[in-house]
Amino acid sequence: MSTLLIPSHVPSASEDAEQLRKAFTGWGTNEKLIISILGYRSSEQRRKIRQAYSDLFGEDLLKGLEKELTRDFEKAVLLWVLDPAERDAVLVYDSVRKWSSTNRALLEIACTRSSEELFAARRAYLVRYKRSIEEDVAVHSKGDFKKLLVPLLTAYRYEGPEVNRTLAKSEAKLLHEKIEEKAYADEEIIRILTTRSKLQLEATFNAYNNEFGHPINKDLKSDPKDDFLSALRSVTKCFTFPQKYFEKTIRLSINKIGTDEEAVTRVITTRAEVDLKTIKELFYKRNSVPLTRAIKKDTTGDYEDFLVALLGEESA
Amino acid sequence: MSTLLIPSHVPSASEDAEQLRKAFTGWGTNEKLIISILGYRSSEQRRKIRQAYSDLFGEDLLKGLEKELTRDFEKAVLLWVLDPAERDAVLVYDSVRKWSSTNRALLEIACTRSSEELFAARRAYLVRYKRSIEEDVAVHSKGDFKKLLVPLLTAYRYEGPEVNRTLAKSEAKLLHEKIEEKAYADEEIIRILTTRSKLQLEATFNAYNNEFGHPINKDLKSDPKDDFLSALRSVTKCFTFPQKYFEKTIRLSINKIGTDEEAVTRVITTRAEVDLKTIKELFYKRNSVPLTRAIKKDTTGDYEDFLVALLGEESA
Repeated sequence: MSTLLIPSHVPSASEDAEQLRKAFTGWGTNEKLIISILGYRSSEQRRKIRQAYSDLFGEDLLKGLEKELTRDFEKAVLLWVLDPAERDAVLVYDSVRKWSSTNRALLEIACTRSSEELFAARRAYLVRYKRSIEEDVAVHSKGDFKKLLVPLLTAYRYEGPEVNRTLAKSEAKLLHEKIEEKAYADEEIIRILTTRSKLQLEATFNAYNNEFGHPINKDLKSDPKDDFLSALRSVTKCFTFPQKYFEKTIRLSINKIGTDEEAVTRVITTRAEVDLKTIKELFYKRNSVPLTRAIKKDTTGDYEDFLVALLGEESA
Repeated sequence: MSTLLIPSHVPSASEDAEQLRKAFTGWGTNEKLIISILGYRSSEQRRKIRQAYSDLFGEDLLKGLEKELTRDFEKAVLLWVLDPAERDAVLVYDSVRKWSSTNRALLEIACTRSSEELFAARRAYLVRYKRSIEEDVAVHSKGDFKKLLVPLLTAYRYEGPEVNRTLAKSEAKLLHEKIEEKAYADEEIIRILTTRSKLQLEATFNAYNNEFGHPINKDLKSDPKDDFLSALRSVTKCFTFPQKYFEKTIRLSINKIGTDEEAVTRVITTRAEVDLKTIKELFYKRNSVPLTRAIKKDTTGDYEDFLVALLGEESA
């Protein structure tokens, strides 16, 4: 569920666009005004504001924001104003250009979006960058990661309710065999993770647990320093319990020496209208501190106020 | 260009549906009537007829046709009545279930459809079979073929005009190196063929020809009995000159001992409204016999009449 606080009476898109224009002009930028508008509008409302802004002022709202804002606050607002498919395309692009084996954005997008959402991101990427996602990922990623990431990002999975339990058992056995051999990037592991439906995978992981007495993720922990193993664990988590995965991502990003603003921004802007409410609950359960308070402690200024708005609290 | 002969005055979809119903009932089936309707209607008109038939008689037209028709004629009419994305889905499904290293339908669909058409086929497959194309292909195909087919079928290529000539040169060199090493299923060859835009690949193949003095396909002929090499040649042909590829497919299907009706039906039903006119011209140029005459010589009965209708000649 969404955390956004959308006022019961929302101004028209043109009124919002005019206010934003005002926030850009004059002496200095009025960041508070920007937050008070964009931080409290749904995806559809933001789309209309962007359209109205362009109609009224002959300029893309994004260009205006880019000129006026800076650093983490700028990045967060720009991501937020994009529609979800475009936002995913931009996140993929940024991750690919500075690809590293510890980067999780690509996995996250590939495994937590619906089949249609993932395809919409691929389409937006093609329009924006005149190349395909898989084309860029195949060039920039390496080795086992490439073998995993390309089919993950190009998957178009079945999302209906049908699950084949016999198949789940046999594939659980297959996964177990390969993991025992430490053949983590074996083509069968990759095939199963990159093509089966999420419900089918859940059944497979359950069968694994039943048959071998512990969750598959425990067996993927044999070498905690192995980035590929850690990526496989992230994949299984994103499939089976994405909110828990996101909770952990935020927790680790905040607890780091030097907050990982990029990850925090990514999770909050991409999940605010999806399941951030659940992520907040899980965060509180796991850390005994409300997420909003933790974010306030670790961030400052307009960036802090903006995140707090998306988290569904008044930025007092 | 389409070869279909659509009459200047076409009856309404309901009139056509009623006539088809008549053709099914009574003593025996009126195949001539079926051909005279379905063989002379565009994809959009057939879609409307199917809808009208279902509205009028509470049954899918396909079910009716399945009951009344037999063998090659049945297969051709059923494929023809499906809309293009569904038809591709069915062709993929049939090929995957009896997959063999000489089957070309998968390659053909992956390489001659536009990015959106290929994705539409994936979507239709998911709806129809409750599994993804890549899921089934990854299970049923093997080894090097699997490494090639899965990314070919899941590609969503850039289709705009931008070509990078420097990249074309460097990738031509890379392809040449791997081919010299006989590393035909090398991941770089697969990456280039499965992710680059068709125009980019054309530039790469041209660079190959310029740099090394002969077309890439000549170098892919070192072992004419190697099915994987032959598949790679088909891929390059489908990308650079699909009509020539289709001409050859029909030519070889007809010249075989025992015509390959499946391939003939596939090419004619999938290309009739796309580029069958050009394929006919190329066929005549290459064989000094009109395609229609060649088809008439090799086929019989209603199947013959139906193909001849799609080829744009009156089935006298």
